[in-house]
Amino acid sequence: MSAPLPSWNDGAARQALLDFVDAVTTEGAPTYVPPEDRVAVFDNDGTLWSEQPMYVQALFAVDRVRALAPSHPEWRGRQPFKALIEGDEEALRTLTEHDAAALLAATHAGMTTGEFSHTVKEWLAKARHPRFQRPFTHCVYQPMLELLDHLRTRGFDLHIVSGGGIDFLRTFCEETYGIPSSHVIGSSGKTRMEWREGQPVLVKLPSLTSLDDGEGKPINIHLHIGKRPVLAFGNSDGDLQMLQYTGVRDGPRLRLLLHHDDDAREYAYDREAKAGRLDHALEVAGQEGWTVVSMRSDWSRVFS
Amino acid sequence: MSAPLPSWNDGAARQALLDFVDAVTTEGAPTYVPPEDRVAVFDNDGTLWSEQPMYVQALFAVDRVRALAPSHPEWRGRQPFKALIEGDEEALRTLTEHDAAALLAATHAGMTTGEFSHTVKEWLAKARHPRFQRPFTHCVYQPMLELLDHLRTRGFDLHIVSGGGIDFLRTFCEETYGIPSSHVIGSSGKTRMEWREGQPVLVKLPSLTSLDDGEGKPINIHLHIGKRPVLAFGNSDGDLQMLQYTGVRDGPRLRLLLHHDDDAREYAYDREAKAGRLDHALEVAGQEGWTVVSMRSDWSRVFS
Repeated sequence: MSAPLPSWNDGAARQALLDFVDAVTTEGAPTYVPPEDRVAVFDNDGTLWSEQPMYVQALFAVDRVRALAPSHPEWRGRQPFKALIEGDEEALRTLTEHDAAALLAATHAGMTTGEFSHTVKEWLAKARHPRFQRPFTHCVYQPMLELLDHLRTRGFDLHIVSGGGIDFLRTFCEETYGIPSSHVIGSSGKTRMEWREGQPVLVKLPSLTSLDDGEGKPINIHLHIGKRPVLAFGNSDGDLQMLQYTGVRDGPRLRLLLHHDDDAREYAYDREAKAGRLDHALEVAGQEGWTVVSMRSDWSRVFS
Repeated sequence: MSAPLPSWNDGAARQALLDFVDAVTTEGAPTYVPPEDRVAVFDNDGTLWSEQPMYVQALFAVDRVRALAPSHPEWRGRQPFKALIEGDEEALRTLTEHDAAALLAATHAGMTTGEFSHTVKEWLAKARHPRFQRPFTHCVYQPMLELLDHLRTRGFDLHIVSGGGIDFLRTFCEETYGIPSSHVIGSSGKTRMEWREGQPVLVKLPSLTSLDDGEGKPINIHLHIGKRPVLAFGNSDGDLQMLQYTGVRDGPRLRLLLHHDDDAREYAYDREAKAGRLDHALEVAGQEGWTVVSMRSDWSRVFS
């Protein structure tokens, strides 16, 4: 068997991961955690795949707005639709995760969950990352795939906990990360059951029911998983509460933040970023001794 | 290896279950379903354990109201609290699942999820079924435990989808049914993250966010599981939409309703019942050819 985490350089971050997995899985050790409680949660945007220059789902929303604009003349005079249709780069860059959710609500309302999933899959198959010129599902981080594999092999129960839309995430998480749809948590909107062509379907409605960001992450972890994680990996201020909620005092737990400090191979951003801003969480990480992973120093390879 | 489903009498229901499991798990068969899509959903009250003479959670709420009454003098003049405190049997019998949810909201608001779970566990350890005089977790149906085991052995992905409160259910589902908390879906209320004694906790708030009954069941199946089940087992009108949502036309699917027609060993009720009313769903089952399980004829043994 080859050594685990081959794309991680030797260093404090890799060692912290290996030590934690050993501590939690060694039977008889005081730090042992049985498999059913070995819950590990991962943010997606900026933690498992690239979130720059914009959230992937925001790019999807932009393309949807443009595709649907001809049948929505009222959008031409209304922000943020106007900016998107006109290709206003500055407005695009300042789209927040919340704006993206609002845009999605406007563009997907009335679709069934099946139609939505189909539309996203078609888009993901064709869309390319503006800088790396390949599908977004090929802009996932190789070291993170190795970590997911390592944890899975050691009996961890892996979950995605992302600010992105849950239906959007589920179109690729199973194939890309090997994480089944029931283990994918995201922001969600209201749905209604209707009969179409003699079959009951769920139709997406415009209102958001849960924004899975900040405090929304522990709330949804409780709702969907029902246990406190022992390991949490994020990269932005939106992950702070999820990391704080992880583990109990004196119990085994590992909290990690990915620091994007690699403009050559990916991006360098933290305090000043619009999407994926990392400021307060980095400060807390320093105070609490959480593990900060440097993309530049800790990863020998970035993309898969 | 002994024959599966030993507490099921030979008959159409047992045969339908065995045939369906074979059809779905036989590789190469046109009805084959890969394990990751072998989703099976079960109602809890009246399907896995007894829901008469009242929902177990309603009994819990009653006991909580009585325990908390001394510090809530305003309850003495207000229904449904008044009836509960005074032991008005008729009012107790007409409590709906929705009343129970409202009572729970009033009695658990302000507790952390951990405190709530602890309170329920303590109550379940002491409370006894009024007729059978044993813990409620011993009022689970032996044939259903055997079915859960059989499906688990054959690679099905089992989930509970109950009108009961998700935090209430999770206190016993793992131990009683072998179904982990992340596979338990129920009605849920709002929570808020707070810091208590230097630790972040989730505090239960009085408002209900999702009533997991009727149309709420397919909506929550989509939210929590993200796939259509291939097998659904319920026992009341509140399960109708879940059964309708199960499977796709021409695909393999099995929809089952437990019919409580055994007053000698458990209870006999359907159209006239207050809790667990089975009327419209029974009619649809007849029209659609769903499998109706007779407790009296199909089960050689009722309780575990």
